[in-house]
Amino acid sequence: MEKRVFSGMRPTGKLHLGHMAGALTNWMKLQEDSAYSCFYGIVDWHAMMSDYANSSIISQNCKEVMLDWLAVGLDPERSTIFIQSHVPEHSELSLALGMITPLGWLQRNPTYKEQILNIQNKDLSNFGFLGYPVLMAADILLYRSNVVPVGEDQSAHLEITREIARRFNHFYGDIFPEPDTLLTPTPKVPGTDGRKMSKSYGNSINIADSEKEMWDKLRTMVTDPARQRKTDPGDPAKCPVWDIHKVFNDDHEEMEELKAGCLAGSIGCVQCKKALKEHVVATMSPVWERRARYEAEEDTLEDVLREGAKKARVVARETMDMVLSGIGFVPRL
Amino acid sequence: MEKRVFSGMRPTGKLHLGHMAGALTNWMKLQEDSAYSCFYGIVDWHAMMSDYANSSIISQNCKEVMLDWLAVGLDPERSTIFIQSHVPEHSELSLALGMITPLGWLQRNPTYKEQILNIQNKDLSNFGFLGYPVLMAADILLYRSNVVPVGEDQSAHLEITREIARRFNHFYGDIFPEPDTLLTPTPKVPGTDGRKMSKSYGNSINIADSEKEMWDKLRTMVTDPARQRKTDPGDPAKCPVWDIHKVFNDDHEEMEELKAGCLAGSIGCVQCKKALKEHVVATMSPVWERRARYEAEEDTLEDVLREGAKKARVVARETMDMVLSGIGFVPRL
Ligand code: SF4
Ligand code: SF4
Repeated sequence: MEKRVFSGMRPTGKLHLGHMAGALTNWMKLQEDSAYSCFYGIVDWHAMMSDYANSSIISQNCKEVMLDWLAVGLDPERSTIFIQSHVPEHSELSLALGMITPLGWLQRNPTYKEQILNIQNKDLSNFGFLGYPVLMAADILLYRSNVVPVGEDQSAHLEITREIARRFNHFYGDIFPEPDTLLTPTPKVPGTDGRKMSKSYGNSINIADSEKEMWDKLRTMVTDPARQRKTDPGDPAKCPVWDIHKVFNDDHEEMEELKAGCLAGSIGCVQCKKALKEHVVATMSPVWERRARYEAEEDTLEDVLREGAKKARVVARETMDMVLSGIGFVPRL
Repeated sequence: MEKRVFSGMRPTGKLHLGHMAGALTNWMKLQEDSAYSCFYGIVDWHAMMSDYANSSIISQNCKEVMLDWLAVGLDPERSTIFIQSHVPEHSELSLALGMITPLGWLQRNPTYKEQILNIQNKDLSNFGFLGYPVLMAADILLYRSNVVPVGEDQSAHLEITREIARRFNHFYGDIFPEPDTLLTPTPKVPGTDGRKMSKSYGNSINIADSEKEMWDKLRTMVTDPARQRKTDPGDPAKCPVWDIHKVFNDDHEEMEELKAGCLAGSIGCVQCKKALKEHVVATMSPVWERRARYEAEEDTLEDVLREGAKKARVVARETMDMVLSGIGFVPRL
């Protein structure tokens, strides 16, 4: 039997090359593997949770994320792609799971404690934010998922999901598989300033950037600081541009030449970046094309959202029927 | 414009004469008043909340409560009568409200602190139980209710509901009216042992009791303890049976006679109880008849539940559309 996969992304706005090389590449691989049936959700309730006072941007952000997903090649025919709030069963299951989730599990959750301490510019001491792991467990368990692709920083949350699943099954019967983590590779993608690419650092190259925008960012991107002049020898191992080469450049011969030229101080950084640009353009051209097409056809995007929610709800309703009858409620008519 | 009323009852099983003389009588009055549009819900999620480890009885309990409601004369044509879990918008609104409800409001809630301290035989320190006032606010606000009929012990909860409504409106626009409490009269209805009638004391006379069961309980019910013998003078003011007379006996002349006979020691308690029985039977006969009819016609009961949920969801969806677009989510398609 095929394994169900759930993964979600918060709608924070346009996605960047880090998202593309990391999570989205992994999602695509799972989508192409017939052993998996994939559910990918834009988790807008989570966005409200952490940005309740500034939530009016959620709608636009959701659309940007959906466009980026479709642009990189997530395929509504093969994967179930949807917006969380369009599947009301997420909130129902969250309510049900909360009834059996000990407060202590949530209060002791290290991510919770850390966020409450670290995030100073907004007040997160709300009931909903404490329940973050419950809603996340609902997202995963609603599809009776077997596998959740995650980076290592999220593993604590999945442990709570597994514990909630076990406890729920203990009371109401064998409803949820305990999902397993699928630790997925995340290549290093530095931003234009050399730090990790991140919207909050303002150093992102976005999937939606035009060729010109992309080149403007690449052109001015920091390189090995030792290369003050074109003839100064450099070291690709110390250069963030080189990390991006490793992601986008599949021409190994060319890379050997560039590397030698950098080490010898015989090529300039602009030449190296221009070479990279060609590869980025080659990879991104079909992505940009798909994005532009979906952006132009508002109806098509709406169809994707409508059909995605519909497909997700088939499984979601099935699960909720099991959950509600497991609890002992009067069946819905 | 008519005012919307919401009130709910937890499905704890068969209702008794205390429920009938108190809440249900008040609900009937509101139902008959064209100034009000009434939403009455059996709040099964709340039953799960406080009895999550023993929830398999919820379904039967919901049916008993619904039969009792219909038996006393709640009318699905005039009021909207439904089971909470049949209207999934309750959980959605609860999720939304939780996002802006400060934890402190819930932790400081006196009812919460009291229950955690007093209820020793089950572990209530779950996330869902802490969120009790949030779910209750969702129940009320989902119908944009103007009025909530409550006994005085519930007033603290309604204050939280009003605060949650205000805070939500502050962030997302003027969606919820702040509901007002309608303090409703609750006549004293003692149980067979003289204490307040309550399922947990095992002293209840149930709406569903047959004439024989009712009489067996009434016959053996405690009276003024001063009346050891039939000729001992008594005092109706000290007699729990007399409190029930006051609820069911509308023959003032007869009551004057009985009172005089009791005070003089010239009538026996059995005679007094027999007189009461006639009045109870007169009131309850149509109730018993309706209950038997609904109990026999499973289809009719199902129709009531189906139509009730459908009617409730019309308003519930309207509210959720306002809520979701107020937050800033992508509209559902
Ligand atoms: S030549 Fe290329 S690898 Fe070397 S420092 Fe310049 S950009 Fe980096
Ligand atoms: S006569 Fe009636 S009112 Fe007096 S003590 Fe007996 S039951 Fe009570």
